[in-house]
Amino acid sequence: MKYTLLALLVLILTGNSLHAQDNLVQYVNPLIGTHKMGHTYPGATVPFGMVQLSPETDTIPYEVDNHYNPLVYKYCAGYQYDDPTIVGFSHTHFSGTGHSDLGDFLIMPSVGKLQLNPGTEQNPKSGFRSSFSHSNEVAAPNYYKVKLDEGNIVAELTTSNRVGFHQYTFPEAGQAHIIFDLIYGIYNYTDKNVWTFVRVENDTLITGYRQTNGWARTRTVYFAMTFSKPIQQYGVKDFSNPHVYKGFWRKFDQSKNFPEAAGEQLRMYFDFNTTAGEAIKIKVALSPVSTTGALENLQAEIPHWNFEKAKLAGQQQWEKELQRVQIKAGTRDDMVNFYTALYHTFLGPTTYMDVNGQYRGLDQGNHAASNFTNYTTFSLWDTYRALHPLFNIIQPKRNSDMVQSMLAHYDQSVHKMLPVWSHHANENWCMIGYHSTSVVADAIVKGTFQGDAMHALNACIATSRHGSYDGIEYYMKSGYVPEDKSGSSVSKTLEYAYDDWAIAQMAKKLNRQDIYTEYMKRSQNWKNVYDASTGYMRPKLSDGTFRKEFDVLSTHGQGFIEGNAWNYSLYVPQDPEQMIAVMGGKKRFVQHLDSLFTMNLPDEFFAHTEDITRDGIIGNYVHGNEPAHHVAYLYNWTDQPWKTQERVRMILKKQYHPAPDGLGGNDDCGQMSAWYIFTSLGFYPVAPGSDQYALGSPAIHSAILPLENGKTFAIEVKNQSDKNVYVQKVTLNDKPLTRLYLTHEDITKGGKLVFYMSAKPRK
Amino acid sequence: MKYTLLALLVLILTGNSLHAQDNLVQYVNPLIGTHKMGHTYPGATVPFGMVQLSPETDTIPYEVDNHYNPLVYKYCAGYQYDDPTIVGFSHTHFSGTGHSDLGDFLIMPSVGKLQLNPGTEQNPKSGFRSSFSHSNEVAAPNYYKVKLDEGNIVAELTTSNRVGFHQYTFPEAGQAHIIFDLIYGIYNYTDKNVWTFVRVENDTLITGYRQTNGWARTRTVYFAMTFSKPIQQYGVKDFSNPHVYKGFWRKFDQSKNFPEAAGEQLRMYFDFNTTAGEAIKIKVALSPVSTTGALENLQAEIPHWNFEKAKLAGQQQWEKELQRVQIKAGTRDDMVNFYTALYHTFLGPTTYMDVNGQYRGLDQGNHAASNFTNYTTFSLWDTYRALHPLFNIIQPKRNSDMVQSMLAHYDQSVHKMLPVWSHHANENWCMIGYHSTSVVADAIVKGTFQGDAMHALNACIATSRHGSYDGIEYYMKSGYVPEDKSGSSVSKTLEYAYDDWAIAQMAKKLNRQDIYTEYMKRSQNWKNVYDASTGYMRPKLSDGTFRKEFDVLSTHGQGFIEGNAWNYSLYVPQDPEQMIAVMGGKKRFVQHLDSLFTMNLPDEFFAHTEDITRDGIIGNYVHGNEPAHHVAYLYNWTDQPWKTQERVRMILKKQYHPAPDGLGGNDDCGQMSAWYIFTSLGFYPVAPGSDQYALGSPAIHSAILPLENGKTFAIEVKNQSDKNVYVQKVTLNDKPLTRLYLTHEDITKGGKLVFYMSAKPRK
Repeated sequence: MKYTLLALLVLILTGNSLHAQDNLVQYVNPLIGTHKMGHTYPGATVPFGMVQLSPETDTIPYEVDNHYNPLVYKYCAGYQYDDPTIVGFSHTHFSGTGHSDLGDFLIMPSVGKLQLNPGTEQNPKSGFRSSFSHSNEVAAPNYYKVKLDEGNIVAELTTSNRVGFHQYTFPEAGQAHIIFDLIYGIYNYTDKNVWTFVRVENDTLITGYRQTNGWARTRTVYFAMTFSKPIQQYGVKDFSNPHVYKGFWRKFDQSKNFPEAAGEQLRMYFDFNTTAGEAIKIKVALSPVSTTGALENLQAEIPHWNFEKAKLAGQQQWEKELQRVQIKAGTRDDMVNFYTALYHTFLGPTTYMDVNGQYRGLDQGNHAASNFTNYTTFSLWDTYRALHPLFNIIQPKRNSDMVQSMLAHYDQSVHKMLPVWSHHANENWCMIGYHSTSVVADAIVKGTFQGDAMHALNACIATSRHGSYDGIEYYMKSGYVPEDKSGSSVSKTLEYAYDDWAIAQMAKKLNRQDIYTEYMKRSQNWKNVYDASTGYMRPKLSDGTFRKEFDVLSTHGQGFIEGNAWNYSLYVPQDPEQMIAVMGGKKRFVQHLDSLFTMNLPDEFFAHTEDITRDGIIGNYVHGNEPAHHVAYLYNWTDQPWKTQERVRMILKKQYHPAPDGLGGNDDCGQMSAWYIFTSLGFYPVAPGSDQYALGSPAIHSAILPLENGKTFAIEVKNQSDKNVYVQKVTLNDKPLTRLYLTHEDITKGGKLVFYMSAKPRK
Repeated sequence: MKYTLLALLVLILTGNSLHAQDNLVQYVNPLIGTHKMGHTYPGATVPFGMVQLSPETDTIPYEVDNHYNPLVYKYCAGYQYDDPTIVGFSHTHFSGTGHSDLGDFLIMPSVGKLQLNPGTEQNPKSGFRSSFSHSNEVAAPNYYKVKLDEGNIVAELTTSNRVGFHQYTFPEAGQAHIIFDLIYGIYNYTDKNVWTFVRVENDTLITGYRQTNGWARTRTVYFAMTFSKPIQQYGVKDFSNPHVYKGFWRKFDQSKNFPEAAGEQLRMYFDFNTTAGEAIKIKVALSPVSTTGALENLQAEIPHWNFEKAKLAGQQQWEKELQRVQIKAGTRDDMVNFYTALYHTFLGPTTYMDVNGQYRGLDQGNHAASNFTNYTTFSLWDTYRALHPLFNIIQPKRNSDMVQSMLAHYDQSVHKMLPVWSHHANENWCMIGYHSTSVVADAIVKGTFQGDAMHALNACIATSRHGSYDGIEYYMKSGYVPEDKSGSSVSKTLEYAYDDWAIAQMAKKLNRQDIYTEYMKRSQNWKNVYDASTGYMRPKLSDGTFRKEFDVLSTHGQGFIEGNAWNYSLYVPQDPEQMIAVMGGKKRFVQHLDSLFTMNLPDEFFAHTEDITRDGIIGNYVHGNEPAHHVAYLYNWTDQPWKTQERVRMILKKQYHPAPDGLGGNDDCGQMSAWYIFTSLGFYPVAPGSDQYALGSPAIHSAILPLENGKTFAIEVKNQSDKNVYVQKVTLNDKPLTRLYLTHEDITKGGKLVFYMSAKPRK
C-alpha cells in the first residue's frame, strides 16, 4: 500500500489531479484478443492467479498424435469469439499461447433431460452444450457472465488466486444438473487424460485429481469442489477404453450416488432441486500437490458463499496492480488498449503453489517454496524481450520470485537446465534459445533479483553449455549452429549469441571476469551466420559454406523459425552498432529498414506464415511474431531516430485495437502487450541485460509509476496528439536528456521525464 | 531380544537343551508352494518386508479386460516351478493369493546382442529371457540364486525391508546389459500401466515411478535404483501407443543416454563393461510416496555394497522371527513343513511406509503414520480365521499395528468402511464379509490392540451397517441376504452373522451393552438360511422361500462362493452347539461330518471347483479353500472329539508336504500356513473374537513360545508319533485340563501345556 499512498502524495504535490484515477478496472476488456489470433481468454482470474475460469467454445475432434491439428492451434485459450456455442467453463487457461494444454475440470449447468455428451456446435441440443449471444455476455477483470440459451441459465464466474467460483441462476423451478466433465481438455477433447480419480466426500464436497499427458508430459492437477447446497443425487459415467480394469468394483451398484470413481474418461453429474430464480454456487479450488492442499486453498481464500464479495476482492486486486501504471491518454480507446494490455501482462506467469507453500517440482516430487512464491508458465522465447523487463520496473518483487522459480526448476532438472518453455511442473521444450539466461541477467543487472546471484549465474552457464541441447555442441565448437546438424540454425545462432551477451553482462556485474570474457566472445557469433554477399543472415553448413538454397521471404525450412531472413537478420540486439556497420553502414541500413516496413508482399506469403494473419504484418515487418519486436527501435542507432518514433506509433495504431480481433498475433503470455505498454510509455528494452531503454514516441498524455521502492517515476507528454508523433525534446528532471536512451536507474531513483512532441520530425 | 534370552533361560532351567535351535532359517524352503496352486514365490524378502524380490517365469499375453484369464490366476506369484525360463526379477509379489497384481520393476541381466523384448518360453533366445535349471537354483529366506543359461550369468537376490539388492556375476569379460523393464507386471504383460516416469540422475542413480490400474485401481510405486559401478551407456525404448504425446521432446536425440523418459510402456537398458567374473550389483529401493522417500529408504537400510552383509542381516531378522516358535519335531520334513509355514505367515501383511513414516493412504493422499507401522495387503476373508489370531499370540505388537493400519484405511475411506481386501493404498473389494471386524474384535478381546478401542468399535459398526455393500441392506432388513438380490447370499449371510457375533464380543468387552444386544441378535441370522428339510444352509429368496434349484455339491451359482453347501453349511463358528442342535443333534452331526471327510466325489466335481485341485480335497472336505478350516475341530462339540484329533493329523499329512507342490491350495497370504502352525501346536481358534482355542492333536514333539510380554508358553507332547494321534490327557502347568479348549490367558500368562498321546482314541 505504501507506494499507492506515495503516488497519491505525488499527485497532490504536482497538482495533477487528473491522474487520480480510482477505477482503472473499467478500462480492461478481456474480450480483446479472443477473436482469431490473439488467443486470449475472456474468463475470470486475479493477477498472476492459479485459476483462470473461462468459457469453452470448441469442439475439437480427437485425432491421434496430430499436434499440428489447426483446431488445436485455434483453441489455445479454449474460446473463439465467433463461435455460437459454449460447452462449459473450465479452470485453467493459457493467455495468448501458440500451443495448447490445460482446460481442467469443465463445469456446465443444464436443465431438462440429463445429457452426458457435449453435443455439437451445429446441434447443441444433442448434448449439454448451449448456444449463447454476445449481447448476453459480460467480461471484466475477475468477472465473466453469460446467459446460456438452453434453459436461460445465467452463468457467472469469479475467482481468487486458487479458487474458481461459479454461480448458476436457474430461472425456472425444477431439477438442475451440474455437469462435471473430467474428460474435457485443451487441446483435444478425449485423449489427453492419463488418469482421473474422484471422491464424493459428502453431500457438498467432491475431491480428486486428473493427470494428463499433453504439452506438459506428466501433469497432475488436484481439486476440491464444494456446492452451496446439498446434492440431491449424482452419478458418474466412465467413457474409458475397455482395458481399464474394473475388477470387483462391479459388485457395487455404481449407477448412482456411488462416491468413488477412477478411470481415464469420466463425466459426472450432480442434480439439485431448484426454485425459480435460485442460484447454485460452486467453488473449485486447485492444487498442484494434493486434494488436501486444494481444500486448504479453498478454506483460506474463499471461506464464504458471497459471490459479489469474492468478485470484488479480485477486482480490488486488479485495481491495485493496474495502479502500478497510472496513465492519462487521449481517448477511451487508448485507455482500454493500454489497461487491457497491462491486464494481459499480469495474467502470468501464474502462481503454482498452495497457500501452505507446497508445490510440485520438475522432478515430479513435492517441494516447499522457501521465501518465494513459486510461479509457472514461462513462455521465455517470448517474454524475455519485454514482459520480464517490464516486471523489473513495475513488478520487481514478483520478477525476483519468478527468477527464483526458474532456479528451482533448474535445481530439479535432471538435464541441469533452466526452463525453455515450462508449465505445471513440466518442461515442454517449445521454441529455441536459452532465454532464461536473459531474464536472470536482466534481473541481476538491474538489481531486482533478491536470491543467490552466483548460483543463478552458474545455472545460466550450465544451461548455455548443455551440448546435447538443440545444436549447442556445434555452436560451441564452430561458433554457429550448422543447418545440416540442427534446423532453424540461424535463429538459434543469433539467439544464443544474444543470450551469451546477457550472461556476460551478469558475469561482469558479479565480477566473474573469466565468464565475461568467454561469453562476450560467444556473443560475437552472430557474425558467423552473416552473409555479406546477400546482406542477410543465412544458414551455414558444417563445412563452413552457406547453404545454396535461400529464400529471404519464406519462413519454412530456411534456417529460421517464426520469422524470415528479412526479420531475423536484424536480430543482434546486443550490438546494433556493429550490426549496422557490418550491413553497410547507417545510411544503407536506414534504406534497408524502410523497405522492411514498406514492401508489398504477395498473398502466397501469408498462406505460409506461422501464427499470424495479414493483420500481424506491416510491409514485411512481422509484429505478430516476436523476433522483430526491437526492430522499429533500431533507427535510434542511425541518423534518423525520428523514424523509430514514426514506426512505433504506426505499429501501436495498426496492431492493437479495442475489439475481440484487436491483436494481430498471439499475445504470447503478455509479450505483445508488454511491447504495447513500453512503447506507449515512450521507451523499450532493446537488449534486456543492458540497463538501457531506447527512447521512442510515447502514445499517452502522462503516466505515473509508483515504484515498489517508494519512489515515483512520472512521464509527461507535451503537445501530444495522433499527428504529433515526433519527439522534439526530452527532459529528465527538468534537464535536457541528450541521449537516445533512458537508464534503469533514471527510473528507479524516481523523477520526471517530459517529452515535447511535434508533427514534424526533428531531423 | 529379551524374550529370546528368557526363552534360553527356560531351556536351561527345564534342561531341555534340544530346543536350543540356533538356526531355524535352515528349515525354510521358499520353493514350497511354487508349483501349481500354492501361489507362493521363491524369491528374497525379510519378514513383513515391502520388497519381495523374486524371479518371473510367466509369459502372459495381453487380453483385453479378461481378468479371468487362467494364466492370470496361474501367475499370481509370478513364478511356476515347472516353467523352463526366467524373464527377470521384479520387486513386489503377493504370497499365495488367488488374484494378481504387482510385479514392479523387472530387472534382467544379459550379454551379447541387446534385446529389448522378452522373448518366448519356446524361444528364449529371441529376447532377453533365459532358460534355467532347478539344479542351478537356491532359495532360502532372504536369498535367491539361479544361474541363467543365457550367458551363464549367476543371479543373486537379497533384500532389506524396502530395498531389493541384486548381484549379477558375468563369467566372461565383455559388455553386460541390465534390462530395466517398466512394462512388466503381474497380471498381464503389457497393459496395466497407466504411466511411468524415469530420470537418470547421474551415472549410478535412477529414480522414477510407475502407476498402474490393476487389481489395485489407482496405484503408484516410486523407486530409486543405484548401480555399483558407473553406467557406460544407456537407453530407453518407448513401446507406448501412438497417442502418447511426444511433443517437442522430439527435438532431442533420445536414442541414447537421454536422462528423462515418461510414457505408458518403457523398457530401458544399462550397459557396463565387465571383466571375467565381475559382479554388477544393483540396489532398488521402493516407496509408496515419492522418489525422495525411496532414496531415503535406500540410504537408511542398505548404505553399503556388501551383498553378503545385506543377506545376513535379513536372515538374522528371519531367525529372530522364527524363534518366536521353537519346536522339536519327529523328522526334518516336519521341521521344514513347520518353519516354511511359519515363514509364509510372516510374509505379510507387508510394510507400506517409508522409513520416515510417510505412506500413501486410501484417499491417494500422503499421510504420516504416528506411533504405528503402516501395513498393507489384507486378504481378510482368508486371514481373519487363523493368521491374525496367530499374530495375537506370537506377533501382538505387529497385529496391533495392523489393526491401526486398518483403522487408518477406515478413516481415509470415502465409503467409511474397514478394508475388505486391500493392498497398496487401494481397496479391491475381493471376496465377501466384513471380516476386518473379526480381526479388530479378536485383538480387542485378547487385549493386544493398543489404540483407540472405541473408535475401532465404531468403525466396525459403520462397516457392518453399510447398506449399499453386498446385500447388507437386505441382511439388516430381513435377517438374510436374498439370493435374488445379491449372489453368494448364503455365504454372505453366514459370514455376516459370524462377524456380527465378533462385534458383539468386542462391544461386551467395551461395555457397550446396546451394541452387544443388537449384534448378538444379528449373529443368529445364520438360522434364517438353514433349510431343515434338507439339513443344509440354502439360498433363500426375497419372498422368504428357499430357492428350488439346489445342488449341495456344486460351488457355482448355488448361493455360495469358494465352497459348496456341504462345506459352508458348517459355518457357524460362533455357536457350534446351536448349529449341531439345529442339525439334528450330536449323533447325527458326527455321521454328517464323517461323510464329509469320507465321501467319494465324481471327477467332474473337480473340474468346476475354484482355486484347488483334487489334492486340496479330502472326501468332500475342501482344505484348499478357507470356509471349512474350522470344520475338523467341530467334533469337539460332539461326543467324539477324538475324531478331531484324527482328522487334523490326517489333514496335516495330506495337505502339506515339503516340495514345490506341497500346498494343495493357495496359501492365501499365510492363512493355510497359519492353520498348519496352530494345528501342529495342538489347538485352533475356531471363532476369533472368542478367547478360546479348540484343542486338537499336536503334531510336534515340543514347542516353546517366548512371548512379547516376557512370559514363555511351552508345549510338550509325550509319546508322540505318527500313529499316536489321539490325546489321552492334557495337563496345564501340571494340572489336568478337563476342558476341550485353551484360553488366550492360559497362553499369555505363561506356562506349560503337556499332551499325552496314544494310538487309541479316548472314547
